[in-house]
Amino acid sequence: MAVVSLSIKFQTKGNADVIDITDDVSQAVRKSGLSDGTITIFCSSSTSALTTIEYESGCISDLKRLFNEIVDPNRDYAHNARWGDGNGHSHVRAALLGASFSVPFVDKRLTLGTWQQIVYLDFDNRPRQRSLVLQLIGE
Amino acid sequence: MAVVSLSIKFQTKGNADVIDITDDVSQAVRKSGLSDGTITIFCSSSTSALTTIEYESGCISDLKRLFNEIVDPNRDYAHNARWGDGNGHSHVRAALLGASFSVPFVDKRLTLGTWQQIVYLDFDNRPRQRSLVLQLIGE
Amino acid sequence: MAVVSLSIKFQTKGNADVIDITDDVSQAVRKSGLSDGTITIFCSSSTSALTTIEYESGCISDLKRLFNEIVDPNRDYAHNARWGDGNGHSHVRAALLGASFSVPFVDKRLTLGTWQQIVYLDFDNRPRQRSLVLQLIGE
Repeated sequence: MAVVSLSIKFQTKGNADVIDITDDVSQAVRKSGLSDGTITIFCSSSTSALTTIEYESGCISDLKRLFNEIVDPNRDYAHNARWGDGNGHSHVRAALLGASFSVPFVDKRLTLGTWQQIVYLDFDNRPRQRSLVLQLIGE
Repeated sequence: MAVVSLSIKFQTKGNADVIDITDDVSQAVRKSGLSDGTITIFCSSSTSALTTIEYESGCISDLKRLFNEIVDPNRDYAHNARWGDGNGHSHVRAALLGASFSVPFVDKRLTLGTWQQIVYLDFDNRPRQRSLVLQLIGE
Repeated sequence: MAVVSLSIKFQTKGNADVIDITDDVSQAVRKSGLSDGTITIFCSSSTSALTTIEYESGCISDLKRLFNEIVDPNRDYAHNARWGDGNGHSHVRAALLGASFSVPFVDKRLTLGTWQQIVYLDFDNRPRQRSLVLQLIGE
């Protein structure tokens, strides 16, 4: 049994940019040398989040619409009134969706479904250089 | 310390069917032979998700109403326009709620509250044969 | 490698009280004696939940508004009709946000971002004495 802590870095466009990180996570499993265990993916950020979805343009568009409707960027936010950075909606969206996501792997393979990808959502209101923690515990 | 990977299979009715899997998860803990650790439950699917709730008909009905309101099945979805399978809302709901859920266990017992059950929600728009990954890490 | 199971207790005001538990979780990491691993925080409750957010009054206010809008306490709930305890909205909110949250730690430090705090949300409709499970797996 061992703990392996890795990270990945990438550029985003912000504004609910949805990025497929499945290949990066699969590579982390291979790189770790572990065969069976759980990988926890973590955003060290308060304006981005993680989930799984079928990564095709229809689903991505539908998911963005949901966030535009329930956490509308074009309204007042108490965060913006205090700090003036205009990303109050980004914070609320990230808190709702969640900054942490764990996936089991078995025989060096993620246990994802055929149409299921791991995605990172950058809800911030500008392009960002981002990094994610990928921590594996297993044997 | 060890990793134990199990799975469970069951039939659902789809259409936001909410299934109490608490007993299955408890049995997985007993079956694993582990005493203390964390079990990660994972849906290898992009149209279903996991959470905890008090499993009584009122709460289940209230939770279904929320999803009907914020992710209404009776409207247009870009996913449906592309693929014609009518389950665009299922994908969005599953991405919002999340396909992964972890519960600590101590002395071979899940650390759930008295009124708290682990539930699987099948948001797809038809009955499905489903399986879940149950992976335990502990000692 | 070891499993360390701890707990913390505190008083809440209920009614979507948002409590910053970051220091408690950091202390649990130090207390565990572990250097690298993942800590799973778990609410043994069906009316409270966990996430991360920038803990400043603007973000907290914006997050509460979201829950007031999408899970309005001032309407009928099937749970309330059956049980009369008036916390139907609390159950739905907790199920949506999620009772479990995992954070990696490296070199005895949580991998949180600078503006990112771990928060406990007590959605129940009255003050509560609460406890959380903090379980660490690592080395």
